[in-house]
Amino acid sequence: MTSSGRLSNKGDRPNVTVLGAGTMGSAAVRALLSSGCGVTVWNRSPARVAPLAAVGARAASSIGDALAGPAPDVTLVSVLDYPAVREVLGAAGERLAGRVLVNLTTGSPEQARAMADWAGEREAAYLDGAVMATAAGVGRPKTLFLYSGSRRAWEAALPVLRLLGEPQDLGPDAGRAALFETALLDVMWASLTGWLHGAALVGSEGTTATEFTPLVVRWLEEVSGLLHLYAPQVDQGVYPGTDSTLHLHASAIAHLLEASERRGVDTRLVKLYGELTAAAIRSGHRGDGFASLIEQLRAPGPAHRPE
Amino acid sequence: MTSSGRLSNKGDRPNVTVLGAGTMGSAAVRALLSSGCGVTVWNRSPARVAPLAAVGARAASSIGDALAGPAPDVTLVSVLDYPAVREVLGAAGERLAGRVLVNLTTGSPEQARAMADWAGEREAAYLDGAVMATAAGVGRPKTLFLYSGSRRAWEAALPVLRLLGEPQDLGPDAGRAALFETALLDVMWASLTGWLHGAALVGSEGTTATEFTPLVVRWLEEVSGLLHLYAPQVDQGVYPGTDSTLHLHASAIAHLLEASERRGVDTRLVKLYGELTAAAIRSGHRGDGFASLIEQLRAPGPAHRPE
Ligand SMILES: NC(=O)c1ccc[n+]([C@@H]2O[C@H](COP(=O)([O-])OP(=O)(O)OC[C@H]3O[C@@H](n4cnc5c(N)ncnc54)[C@H](OP(=O)(O)O)[C@@H]3O)[C@@H](O)[C@H]2O)c1
Ligand SMILES: NC(=O)c1ccc[n+]([C@@H]2O[C@H](COP(=O)([O-])OP(=O)(O)OC[C@H]3O[C@@H](n4cnc5c(N)ncnc54)[C@H](OP(=O)(O)O)[C@@H]3O)[C@@H](O)[C@H]2O)c1
Repeated sequence: MTSSGRLSNKGDRPNVTVLGAGTMGSAAVRALLSSGCGVTVWNRSPARVAPLAAVGARAASSIGDALAGPAPDVTLVSVLDYPAVREVLGAAGERLAGRVLVNLTTGSPEQARAMADWAGEREAAYLDGAVMATAAGVGRPKTLFLYSGSRRAWEAALPVLRLLGEPQDLGPDAGRAALFETALLDVMWASLTGWLHGAALVGSEGTTATEFTPLVVRWLEEVSGLLHLYAPQVDQGVYPGTDSTLHLHASAIAHLLEASERRGVDTRLVKLYGELTAAAIRSGHRGDGFASLIEQLRAPGPAHRPE
Repeated sequence: MTSSGRLSNKGDRPNVTVLGAGTMGSAAVRALLSSGCGVTVWNRSPARVAPLAAVGARAASSIGDALAGPAPDVTLVSVLDYPAVREVLGAAGERLAGRVLVNLTTGSPEQARAMADWAGEREAAYLDGAVMATAAGVGRPKTLFLYSGSRRAWEAALPVLRLLGEPQDLGPDAGRAALFETALLDVMWASLTGWLHGAALVGSEGTTATEFTPLVVRWLEEVSGLLHLYAPQVDQGVYPGTDSTLHLHASAIAHLLEASERRGVDTRLVKLYGELTAAAIRSGHRGDGFASLIEQLRAPGPAHRPE
């Protein structure tokens, strides 16, 4: 480990400092190196830095060392959680002033907003990020990254962010990327759970998940079409049942419940569709479409009603 | 209404009889007519037949009339439910012998199998079908239709089925199309519910569903990649947590729960992910991936264990 040695970036490629060389931080370092950036890397346990130094990163011996000298174009942070981010950036002290910080660590919107305030007090421009992929996706042009926070940080960091994947800007609120990440993971868990439940159902009659899955993938494209149809319905609070009504859904959900029970497959997920649908029907949505279930899910009160 | 008049099909296009002219039956008649088929149509209430006769269908005055004369290439049935199918086909009496029946009515695997037996006793070849789209999709080459049942019926009907959409053969068990339909609807309800929940979450901070949805559609492609990764894991009963472990999922699910509670958004769906994940961790899958939840969902017992 040494703080000497100049960064050798190719041509006009940016210089980047990466704090945290876990699975995700290391993937970012490798992607940036192979794009020709000059990369300085620090990690709490030095062992994780050695393989990165071997492929061209400058290994910093301390956080102070990592942030010594003129500010690099961007400082990326990827550690376990927000308490760890505070520990790491806290150790940087005065050296944060004037820097562009991009934090890829996962956390809540509240944590991201608090960090943005904290960084602002130290005169650093703070952008919060969410990696919507595993480490294997880092460095691929189609991998989705969500960002929100300081406009200055977004503009300054963009050339670097483009080397990690496809950056999506969610605006100036530092908490928004984390909120979207949480909501997208929500959709993932729901879809995966529904798929596993469906696989259990067809599996009970000898169909493998490998046979079932290509049809599901195909079908999810059809479902994506429904999302585009339903999104304005949710926003307008009007849910015409032209494609299918809750009355029809309820009867098909009852069939699914019976089919699950008959095969000994868990019924909790199906009962939840049933409860939500029944409650929406009781509220007068019998002839409306599935999007009317939004009213069963969102917080009550005028703040969440469509204008 | 008249039983006279010859069918005028174009060239070598098949002749088809359609029993039931509800939304779905009428869409099938129109698609077949515009492909140049000769189409005879019957419906319990004659009023629904008139607009189809106006665009070239032969209107049958009774089921007996619809099935009079030499067997058409295919007889399609699309009515409300299986009791209605039995009523309609029961009225056909001896005229079922030798016919190719394709039933697009939605029902359970058990109902489809019983109908196949019933048709077999009457010497009709029975194919059960599931339309994985709304009526608007009928007649489009990419619309998914699932079929299973008599091999003779599948082969004889294929030229007609291709005019309705993209037919997927699920083999000789007449119950399989209905089982897959149920399981695919399951995935749809889960994904829609997860999406609505996510929309409620981001909506609580002023993001519209219309802003959120394009990211979800994009993200569902990523999720589809996970399904391909996880399907062989489900089949083999081995769930390496290389992409992410249940331990990590559990902690992110706890964040989602907190974010939902804080915003007054319904927590039942999130609690279900939490319960399933916790139970899987208790069974020893802490370091395994999300696919290990299959063991919490499927029926216990050796019949459902991987070989
Ligand atoms: N891996 C993924 O697929 C993925 C996907 C999306 C988002 N993320 C997020 O990315 C972040 C990093 O994940 P990862 O997969 O890289 O995790 P990881 O491989 O477990 O690495 C964790 C990193 O955090 C460091 N760390 C932990 N506590 C620290 C502290 N108090 N002070 C300084 N450093 C500390 C660790 O340092 P040591 O080496 O010294 O322990 C290590 O570098 C997490 O927030 C995760 O949720 C990961
Ligand atoms: N529409 C869709 O998007 C869709 C999608 C997938 C699957 N499906 C399935 O397709 C089937 C038909 O749906 P649909 O949308 O066409 O329904 P629909 O518009 O309500 O039409 C129902 C049809 O069933 C007939 N019928 C009901 N009871 C009968 C009986 N006892 N004897 C004879 N005919 C009877 C009705 O005749 P009358 O006109 O005399 O009432 C009418 O033709 C259902 O099983 C549905 O689940 C529909």
